Amino acid sequence: MKAEVISIGDELLFGQVVNTNASFICEKLTDLNIPVKKVSTVGDHRDYIINAFNVAIRNSDVIVVTGGLGPTHDDITRNCVAEFFNSKLIMNETVLSDIKERFARFNRPLSKVNEEQALVPDVADVVRNLNGTAPGYWIEKDNKVFIVMPGVPREMKEMMTGEVSDKLKELAAKQNLFYKRANILTTGIAESTLFEKLGDITELVDSGTLAFLPNYSGVRLRIGYSGEDELLVQSKISEIEQRIRSKVGRYIYGREDDTLGKVVGRLLSERGLTISVAESCTGGNISNEITNYSGSSIYFERGIVAYSNASKVEILNVNEDTLQNFGAVSKETVEEMAQGIRGISGSDYGLAITGIMGPTGATNEKPVGTVFIACSDAKTVVSKKYNFGDDRIINKQRATFAALELVRRILLGINVES
Amino acid sequence: MKAEVISIGDELLFGQVVNTNASFICEKLTDLNIPVKKVSTVGDHRDYIINAFNVAIRNSDVIVVTGGLGPTHDDITRNCVAEFFNSKLIMNETVLSDIKERFARFNRPLSKVNEEQALVPDVADVVRNLNGTAPGYWIEKDNKVFIVMPGVPREMKEMMTGEVSDKLKELAAKQNLFYKRANILTTGIAESTLFEKLGDITELVDSGTLAFLPNYSGVRLRIGYSGEDELLVQSKISEIEQRIRSKVGRYIYGREDDTLGKVVGRLLSERGLTISVAESCTGGNISNEITNYSGSSIYFERGIVAYSNASKVEILNVNEDTLQNFGAVSKETVEEMAQGIRGISGSDYGLAITGIMGPTGATNEKPVGTVFIACSDAKTVVSKKYNFGDDRIINKQRATFAALELVRRILLGINVES
Repeated sequence: MKAEVISIGDELLFGQVVNTNASFICEKLTDLNIPVKKVSTVGDHRDYIINAFNVAIRNSDVIVVTGGLGPTHDDITRNCVAEFFNSKLIMNETVLSDIKERFARFNRPLSKVNEEQALVPDVADVVRNLNGTAPGYWIEKDNKVFIVMPGVPREMKEMMTGEVSDKLKELAAKQNLFYKRANILTTGIAESTLFEKLGDITELVDSGTLAFLPNYSGVRLRIGYSGEDELLVQSKISEIEQRIRSKVGRYIYGREDDTLGKVVGRLLSERGLTISVAESCTGGNISNEITNYSGSSIYFERGIVAYSNASKVEILNVNEDTLQNFGAVSKETVEEMAQGIRGISGSDYGLAITGIMGPTGATNEKPVGTVFIACSDAKTVVSKKYNFGDDRIINKQRATFAALELVRRILLGINVES
Repeated sequence: MKAEVISIGDELLFGQVVNTNASFICEKLTDLNIPVKKVSTVGDHRDYIINAFNVAIRNSDVIVVTGGLGPTHDDITRNCVAEFFNSKLIMNETVLSDIKERFARFNRPLSKVNEEQALVPDVADVVRNLNGTAPGYWIEKDNKVFIVMPGVPREMKEMMTGEVSDKLKELAAKQNLFYKRANILTTGIAESTLFEKLGDITELVDSGTLAFLPNYSGVRLRIGYSGEDELLVQSKISEIEQRIRSKVGRYIYGREDDTLGKVVGRLLSERGLTISVAESCTGGNISNEITNYSGSSIYFERGIVAYSNASKVEILNVNEDTLQNFGAVSKETVEEMAQGIRGISGSDYGLAITGIMGPTGATNEKPVGTVFIACSDAKTVVSKKYNFGDDRIINKQRATFAALELVRRILLGINVES
């Protein structure tokens, strides 16, 4: 069984909206053992849409379409679907009452364009929209499944993980082939170094696959394996993962959808420990990342974004002489910041960061990308210097991950230097 | 002249990597008056890649390919390009010396897989890679242009905005058709309300186009117009924008790649004013957004992430009785936070936020999504209550935008209530 995803919307071809829907749908289909072979994106133009439908239905068994179902004039997907299946639009009473109920709930006046969203091609079963007004369609014809969903991510995601996923599961169960994958997340090691440390890939993965997926937080290793025996496939994946761990384990901070923020949070809560953060150059991004997870209020006490020198002295008790003699971006300052935030908050750990994110602020000795990070506990303070690149936003991200990785290593007793 | 973008990589079909490259390339091509008619994504498999090349070269004049040029075993784009153009791989000495120089500069050992990245199909002109090792290709054949670039965003972007863009500009100049667009950014108004306030779209845009592009920060309106007379096209765009501004101007915070953080920063610096921020529920995200822009240290003094009640009392001088009587999520608390942060920082404005982001922490009176935002100056404190949704991360984003919009309205003297 093969799938194709079709995204519809001029905004995608203009490049102003990133196609996050396609990746979300691809991931769900992959997890359901329905491999995606192609993603196509076309604009809000009848000819291109119909052509994409034709190509997809020739080559694939499952076609998932999103976008162009909204209430405004540039949304033409519904009419194209009706034309493609030679189908009439009829008013669907369930959908209409869903829409009415929704508008009443939010106290919003119901307009004619909203009511018209209840018009559905008669070839389609309706997929109800719990987060919006435009319904989805489930169409089965000639052994092909054709699914249409709105382009609003929240609406599509709810359908895709709910009703659509349930129906696809039934379909997928009829195949007798199992594909499994595992993602191992590394940080603090370059892709080519990782590649060399892992040695002969063919030997490592047996008849499976291994992909290297670098991003700013590190390199993700994706293991894939397929076969007819589900248990065997699963055990092969575990074996490959074990071999990888034995070679580069210290760089592995998590699996699947783990993030450094989540992992550090988990390590802190397991140990009943707390942390507070003093940031300069990352401007709140470390605290923001830590507090992205529910339950973070248990281990995160407070954060200080000490942007001005005055705030470093007044709140964090950094010595004015230290700032004077060594500068705001220095090992000495960051260590005092770490001890300062720990002191005022009473947290077990104090994490601090200072650096030059660019494009301005550099000196000869301290180019853009120079960052110092320190972590203090009751006994000691550990600090480290980093050299990132010249892009401000990327530097903020990389520095945030490096700070969290420093904490992870300290919590696990891993050498912080290599 | 029509373009097609082809993205190559299993990771894209697995859905684990979002295709930000395609949107970046689409935007650049659109700006060069080379409209993109289709984006295709295929995996690292010879048959699918060659098939995509065949379809694209039949239908389009400019084909832009990214991905699969890396040093590891799963990168096969180079060999597919060589096969497709019936071309031999030859060692390119310029590329080899670029690679050697790069590794020497970063003090990294040069491995054989890295050296092999200097093998280039002989049909291609090399596009040098200033941010990495794999070169890009520029291939002209039978009046078609075929461009291949690495999938690493930083490397692709440098090529696409540099050498590739220069060459495409020359090509595009030969056409005699001008397409222009403008993006108007609104916030604080729902898509359907905006649609209704704008009235008859056909009348509004003349023979141009108007698209509604909602996201968590608001609704973006994209105006498009094309014609043979560049000046006329530009003036039509301006006219349409003026008509839109006259109807919904108060909701418009910027144009093109403006963000609320950038706009608020600009308004503060123009006026020589400073701000400090006290955040609870957004966990540092407001400070993070404000400090994403170079020069923010001039108007941003400090930020406090007062997650615990103790930190609200100790640092922000919130009255313990206020917390006791009204709770941490209340109008009374947020107003004291705003006055507190203003007092300790000496900034002109104190911005504060407190709320329940979910999934836990809700009460009957204060469901998940309840947020209070306040902004204080020397004379007064303005506060407002918001009801967002039930997704923690989306709530953090929406609350951040709402806080910045409150400041924007205050700085521009726009009524904050509607």
